[in-house]
Amino acid sequence: MHTHPINAMIAAANDAINREDFDAAMDFYTDDATLVVVPGRAANGKTEIRKALAALAEHFQHTLYVTQGDTIVIEAGDTALVIAQTNVRANMKSASPSLETRNANYVFRRGADDKWRCMVDNSYGAALLALPPV
Amino acid sequence: MHTHPINAMIAAANDAINREDFDAAMDFYTDDATLVVVPGRAANGKTEIRKALAALAEHFQHTLYVTQGDTIVIEAGDTALVIAQTNVRANMKSASPSLETRNANYVFRRGADDKWRCMVDNSYGAALLALPPV
Repeated sequence: MHTHPINAMIAAANDAINREDFDAAMDFYTDDATLVVVPGRAANGKTEIRKALAALAEHFQHTLYVTQGDTIVIEAGDTALVIAQTNVRANMKSASPSLETRNANYVFRRGADDKWRCMVDNSYGAALLALPPV
Repeated sequence: MHTHPINAMIAAANDAINREDFDAAMDFYTDDATLVVVPGRAANGKTEIRKALAALAEHFQHTLYVTQGDTIVIEAGDTALVIAQTNVRANMKSASPSLETRNANYVFRRGADDKWRCMVDNSYGAALLALPPV
């Protein structure tokens, strides 16, 4: 449960998202990955995920900046559950930036090339249990 | 994200654990499953998980009673992230029973027989980020 190659993957994925380099961001997902976009709505597969990330960037007026805090990785065979503090910042080009820290959940799978990729990306974590579907 | 066959699996697994029928409980895990026993310590594979469940039953003086609350299942291919309210009750044969509700995380995999089995069992959920290793 200490430093794990997945940590570097998440940091690089956040960096790609912050730069709005969605082609690079897609490298971090498996082909059949699922991204929770908002409570009650998910994007399935790279085409939908790419579209959802572009829409989120637009929604946050291109000021979204995501960083990773404490992270725990629990491996089982070729699969890992990841629990990560995720800091979601968006200044919205205003004097009142929003900053939210979430306890995200991810599921990663190790591929035949030994690289870990994200299968499930749920930045809301258990907060989904309390949030009404959008 | 509505009713899902995994809900019935979790209910049946809880029932097996409550009856201390550890042979039955093992049916719900994959061969390479990981169970978070306490913060910082995990059991890997069925032999270790069986031992850990027996030790937990002992620790709770055979009064452990686990039930499932609201549950969200997020599928990606043959894999699913599960977020579930888990009520952990143990009366410890005393007048002051303990009751704790946790937001558990599970990862399930659908096998060749189409049955979903648990790969990662983390009843602590994101609370692991705050809990010191035991």
